[in-house]
Amino acid sequence: MAQPLVSQPSEESGFVKEIPSKAQHFADWYTAVVLKAELADYYPVRGCTVIRPYGYAIWELMQQGLDRRFKATGHMNAYFPLFIPQSFLQREAAHVQGFAPEVAWVTRGGGEELSEPLAVRPTSETAIGHMYARWIRSYRDLPVLINQWCNVVRWEKATRPFLRTMEFLWQEGHTAHRTAEDGEQESRQMLEVYRDFAETDLSVPVLSGRKPDSERFPGALHSYTIEALMPDGQALQAGTSHNLGQNFARAFNIKFLDSDNTEKFVWTTSWGLSWRMLGGLIMAHGDDRGLVLPPRVAPYQAVIVPILSGKGRDEVLTAARSIASGLAPAVRVRLDDRTEVTPGWKFNDWEMRGVPLRIELGPRDLGQRQAVLVPRVGGGKRPVPLDGLAEAVPSILAEIQQTLLQQAKAYLDSHIVTATTREQFAAAIAARSGFVRVGWCGAEACEQALRREGGASPRLISTETPGGPCPSCGGAARHVVYYARAY
Amino acid sequence: MAQPLVSQPSEESGFVKEIPSKAQHFADWYTAVVLKAELADYYPVRGCTVIRPYGYAIWELMQQGLDRRFKATGHMNAYFPLFIPQSFLQREAAHVQGFAPEVAWVTRGGGEELSEPLAVRPTSETAIGHMYARWIRSYRDLPVLINQWCNVVRWEKATRPFLRTMEFLWQEGHTAHRTAEDGEQESRQMLEVYRDFAETDLSVPVLSGRKPDSERFPGALHSYTIEALMPDGQALQAGTSHNLGQNFARAFNIKFLDSDNTEKFVWTTSWGLSWRMLGGLIMAHGDDRGLVLPPRVAPYQAVIVPILSGKGRDEVLTAARSIASGLAPAVRVRLDDRTEVTPGWKFNDWEMRGVPLRIELGPRDLGQRQAVLVPRVGGGKRPVPLDGLAEAVPSILAEIQQTLLQQAKAYLDSHIVTATTREQFAAAIAARSGFVRVGWCGAEACEQALRREGGASPRLISTETPGGPCPSCGGAARHVVYYARAY
Repeated sequence: MAQPLVSQPSEESGFVKEIPSKAQHFADWYTAVVLKAELADYYPVRGCTVIRPYGYAIWELMQQGLDRRFKATGHMNAYFPLFIPQSFLQREAAHVQGFAPEVAWVTRGGGEELSEPLAVRPTSETAIGHMYARWIRSYRDLPVLINQWCNVVRWEKATRPFLRTMEFLWQEGHTAHRTAEDGEQESRQMLEVYRDFAETDLSVPVLSGRKPDSERFPGALHSYTIEALMPDGQALQAGTSHNLGQNFARAFNIKFLDSDNTEKFVWTTSWGLSWRMLGGLIMAHGDDRGLVLPPRVAPYQAVIVPILSGKGRDEVLTAARSIASGLAPAVRVRLDDRTEVTPGWKFNDWEMRGVPLRIELGPRDLGQRQAVLVPRVGGGKRPVPLDGLAEAVPSILAEIQQTLLQQAKAYLDSHIVTATTREQFAAAIAARSGFVRVGWCGAEACEQALRREGGASPRLISTETPGGPCPSCGGAARHVVYYARAY
Repeated sequence: MAQPLVSQPSEESGFVKEIPSKAQHFADWYTAVVLKAELADYYPVRGCTVIRPYGYAIWELMQQGLDRRFKATGHMNAYFPLFIPQSFLQREAAHVQGFAPEVAWVTRGGGEELSEPLAVRPTSETAIGHMYARWIRSYRDLPVLINQWCNVVRWEKATRPFLRTMEFLWQEGHTAHRTAEDGEQESRQMLEVYRDFAETDLSVPVLSGRKPDSERFPGALHSYTIEALMPDGQALQAGTSHNLGQNFARAFNIKFLDSDNTEKFVWTTSWGLSWRMLGGLIMAHGDDRGLVLPPRVAPYQAVIVPILSGKGRDEVLTAARSIASGLAPAVRVRLDDRTEVTPGWKFNDWEMRGVPLRIELGPRDLGQRQAVLVPRVGGGKRPVPLDGLAEAVPSILAEIQQTLLQQAKAYLDSHIVTATTREQFAAAIAARSGFVRVGWCGAEACEQALRREGGASPRLISTETPGGPCPSCGGAARHVVYYARAY
């Protein structure tokens, strides 16, 4: 009974229009896929986009995958206000410096000028810090493990659906702990949750590690990040987890009475992942025919296209309905029984929309008591007996999920180059070929020198043991750092 | 492994503090229950509140109950921007008149004054109307059945958690149809979805019907409403569904090419239900011991309190864990194995938090291979054999759900009085005893006359056949109208 998540073909749209080549016109390819697959659309306020039902259904599945992991690690959802008093934002010095230029301000409400402007939240550390100071009294109240799903606003002039928008949907976790170690462990644990989610649910492999200090979140002690590599060789920061130390605890006076009867500041963390990751998964897997969705987050995992021409039409339709209802509890399946478009049109259309598996059923197939399964990636047509579909379909979907991960992993692995000299580094960055792995002595001057080479930034500090020299000063490397141009 | 949804008792909080009498101090009772049960808290921006994890968990269950119904009736979720250009709000004359005074305006962003202020959405008919005009081309694109879950802002000076807040969470459905009949049918269907949700999931019976024109949504042709009766005799508008006719289609030029090859305006609807309904369910069911939650939306449906003093402590704890894991897939169960508070303290605390069912287990019970079930409402202690719990607990929960509905239904039924004269009407309103049922001739003057009697407003026009006269003019009644004071 559920309505299709995509529009009917309209008179004028005709056959699926061409999508630019992904290899040659990557940015245009991305925009075309987002618009044609009806994932998102532009909106008259610059920087704002609309997420259409098919795109939102992917986001809902992503939310479920994350939310399940958050709850399994003891976190609870809550909701904090959209508006943050200007004075709150100013309490933590680095925080206000980092965010003030990006803030949208409400200055008028209910017909009156406000005495204190209200920030539309760019992130909620300050609002939540204020509440935690009210709620936390004793060590018994710790840890506080809260997440919220909400919209945030950061002023942006450029707009790329999902990747860069003024308003975006995300989740932000905010936790408070008794000890420094507990805070550090939480921030690392949530990074690992993000990594597992990206790889397991989205088939997007990532590098994970600590941000250099120059790139950390405003107000954080340390920031951790997962970074995916896009097909144009640029990195996408896909989720971050921050150990905030006692910076916000001091700014908002969040104290607890410990079991030794002394008052102490708590240790806090925050971590966030936004719909930007949805943009990442579009870029990572799509091809020249359009979107490719990993089965775990595909609104329709399989589409049944019955061949309804000629004799045997009614029998085919009846059998297709029976396949759909047989698969339905375990598989998100859609029966495309439209008669105003041809099967060939449907094949193209569903491929463009990234449905992982097509199930074809014609009169001849029905005569042989079989259907033909056509995976979106990996190629091949596989005839499967009708009474084996309930087993075969979930198994092929799992296979597709793995194929996508392996493809993306192979791409990532083959796009990491190691540079030991500044010339090698500059050449690798200029080639736009992915991550450049370098040793780093730890001096900020050396980081600054490399930043000037072609617009790359240090994406993360890995936990690997450094081998070679720092390419900038030639001194001994203390860390391994991955550089890339980035979104 | 999930963390408790409520804080640990802190040193200073001690035993659960007294809650004011619901009958004598209803407003104070409400505030005390909301704060003590940790459903919500105040926030320094006037009109804004924080929804704490235990309160948010109820909202999540409410969302699930509604979302399931929306999807079963063919609707899809999407997301439209928070910001609405001022010019959009002005396109529909009645709409802007209704909402402009309540709008919060963003006038500054990214360090600059904006050339056109942006409204923080008070509702999204205009933003969505603009997009529908882009998306809808042919009759084949219809109906468009979209819902969104989001925050909206309406400037408010008063604050009552859930009931009246400047920012609130809600869902807003927006649909477009080919014919007037389809639009009317949709708006009635969604009203029925709301009614069923309120009664089935929340055990809150409602009256439903059409709003008189004086009370309809700004820009609507007709508005439909469900209205619940609170224990103080005031009505709570708990969900509304609007037939918008072609008003927004004309304002935003939403046209389609029909099968007869002529261009026509679509017919639109919108319908919304907010966290206000959560306030309604608190008021409807709570008592002097605190919150009472209907099992379907209770974050914990059952709490196990083992008696851990003296001999047999370990065996009791082991058995309690086994009960919890045995019930866990079918029942949202919490094992309260804290040792820093007494069982008596826990009994009070969980009663205050409205958990529908308590399961007590002491050494003596264990000796008899039984546990004692204590429902939050309906009274009585029921010993049940351990091996019968998996069957008994869901069945008692279903019984509690029904008991709550019956109690609330009995209250509603006994608080509807019929008035046939203006004196009767005035007396009934002055007595603050609930809904007053009157005939209405249909003249606005008569409605205005009744409005002046003690601050009541016409809540809805019922589909009942009118019997008596219009109490205002004495003329023949054409409709039956329910009046009440309202939140």
